[in-house]
Amino acid sequence: ETMEVTLKTEVEAGASGFSVKGGGNEGIFIKKVLKESPASKIFSLREGDQLLSATIFFDNIKYEDALKILQYSEPYRVQFSLKRKIAVQEDLEHSAAQHKKERIGQ
Amino acid sequence: ETMEVTLKTEVEAGASGFSVKGGGNEGIFIKKVLKESPASKIFSLREGDQLLSATIFFDNIKYEDALKILQYSEPYRVQFSLKRKIAVQEDLEHSAAQHKKERIGQ
Repeated sequence: ETMEVTLKTEVEAGASGFSVKGGGNEGIFIKKVLKESPASKIFSLREGDQLLSATIFFDNIKYEDALKILQYSEPYRVQFSLKRKIAVQEDLEHSAAQHKKERIGQ
Repeated sequence: ETMEVTLKTEVEAGASGFSVKGGGNEGIFIKKVLKESPASKIFSLREGDQLLSATIFFDNIKYEDALKILQYSEPYRVQFSLKRKIAVQEDLEHSAAQHKKERIGQ
């Protein structure tokens, strides 16, 4: 008897030592994991696992690499985590004003 | 008075219409957002936002694009979401056996 589980790996740097196959409707699957690699030891990836999503953290990332990742992911479903500075008073007024504008626009 | 908030955008496809700057210690920031673009309208990105992370969903992704994203993100902190088929009985025995082996190995 088999069952399907979804799981999240550790958040770590250096996910090397694995290959993937598939694509399109089929989905992306782990093809091969090198035995003593970070993919195996740290991320616990196993052959046959389906890769549902990858969250890439942008701390200490090279500008060029961030750009490439964003460019290649542009056609696909994506979710960003953001940090935003907001002016506490001003922002409340601003978003109220924007709301009004949007309503008029509709 | 200003405060910092962290927020997550919608999960949608086609995050186009923005550019980024920064990199390294500094972090990656939204440089410019085109007014009527998905980046602005769907993802609500704003100039000055810091991009903490991006979660890319691999459903219906081209093999080549998934590969590139994985290659470019290899040096950085990453977390995967996986779907795994497990044999219910067999797996319990298997993981117990593995545990023993690992302990002997240490």
